[in-house]
Amino acid sequence: MSAENDPVAALVLLSGGLDSAVTLAVARSRNFHCHALSFDYGQRHRAELEAARRVASALGAASHKFISIDLTQIGGSALTDLRIPVPNQPADGIPVTYVPARNTIFLAFALGYAEIMDVHNIFIGVNAIDYSGYPDCRPEYIAAFERLARLATKAGVEGGELHVQTPLISLSKAGIVRVGADLGVDFSLTVSCYQADLEGRACGRCEACRLRREGFQTAGIADPTRYA
Amino acid sequence: MSAENDPVAALVLLSGGLDSAVTLAVARSRNFHCHALSFDYGQRHRAELEAARRVASALGAASHKFISIDLTQIGGSALTDLRIPVPNQPADGIPVTYVPARNTIFLAFALGYAEIMDVHNIFIGVNAIDYSGYPDCRPEYIAAFERLARLATKAGVEGGELHVQTPLISLSKAGIVRVGADLGVDFSLTVSCYQADLEGRACGRCEACRLRREGFQTAGIADPTRYA
Repeated sequence: MSAENDPVAALVLLSGGLDSAVTLAVARSRNFHCHALSFDYGQRHRAELEAARRVASALGAASHKFISIDLTQIGGSALTDLRIPVPNQPADGIPVTYVPARNTIFLAFALGYAEIMDVHNIFIGVNAIDYSGYPDCRPEYIAAFERLARLATKAGVEGGELHVQTPLISLSKAGIVRVGADLGVDFSLTVSCYQADLEGRACGRCEACRLRREGFQTAGIADPTRYA
Repeated sequence: MSAENDPVAALVLLSGGLDSAVTLAVARSRNFHCHALSFDYGQRHRAELEAARRVASALGAASHKFISIDLTQIGGSALTDLRIPVPNQPADGIPVTYVPARNTIFLAFALGYAEIMDVHNIFIGVNAIDYSGYPDCRPEYIAAFERLARLATKAGVEGGELHVQTPLISLSKAGIVRVGADLGVDFSLTVSCYQADLEGRACGRCEACRLRREGFQTAGIADPTRYA
């Protein structure tokens, strides 16, 4: 095998939801040697961490690192402050499930870990079509982070590259489901619901559940989501 | 008092070292209502957290928040991995005291907290003259973060401003000491040493000690640093 075809290492942010599972599958299909990275950030939907473990294993991640960062210290979101309920209706504007600076914090940790691992590709499953209006999911945000990353790190200063790869960014939720199905992702392993119970059963009512269900329906693919 | 002269709120990153103390004093002198933010990140030199507490109090911070983020989970630095010794000699290039992505992680948390607090100014005491060659202390890095911050947040999307203020960025260490002395900073409260003992006494040998000592000498100002 030529060096050209040797797998290149990548760090893949893996929440345990549908999008990040498909992102990992895409990275694997592109011949990346994938190290999964998950965050225990005090999220309400802790079942997604177990889901992340199952997904990393099923999709052949080379390693799986969990980093604990307690975002309840910041609060201000329905996902990290149990006093703020998860809404059942879509919001006008940015919803209360928005976690201030979450993707910036996740990507900052990923950047540090990638530097230690000497990895120059970070995959993140953001998408800017069927999303919840979170500002830190837009292409211009990712481009700004990539620029920052090159300036922030030892690797960047020494001329290394750092790529933030977002293979889902222009896909609809149905498109993501189709890509995942083509790559053999077992969606039953994933948990998207913002208030999934400890067994990973979804509420069926929150924005994350709604987007996910509509994605399967539009894609015409059987939805294996377990509801509480 | 006119609204124009009313204090504007600011978040000030406060490590407990000399630079961040002077930064807080500068922010106060510019009539900002200052909320101090310190990070317990598993640093070797934990005495700086006690120093931060004293400095915030002495300089009249309106509040003081501590956020715990365990950077030993990433490691790879003499400041967060006790197996890597702090060097006594200046390094060629970026030294082992560099903590991967530290300022990006700190600023990301500050961004989230600022959003919750509805604060639009973040002060950070980086400087690009007498520093240790850390990439995330350069003006181009800060400019890139400011750009990212405006794209990352709800406030930014809704047209709000976010300013990352770096009043020390072009000052030499001696210049920082002079500014601090003019503003009445009690330098004896601050701890800069990378391996200060639990009472905050400095080693006198590490890069942080060397830069600090030379700063006082060049400024011609008495150095109150306590050495072990």
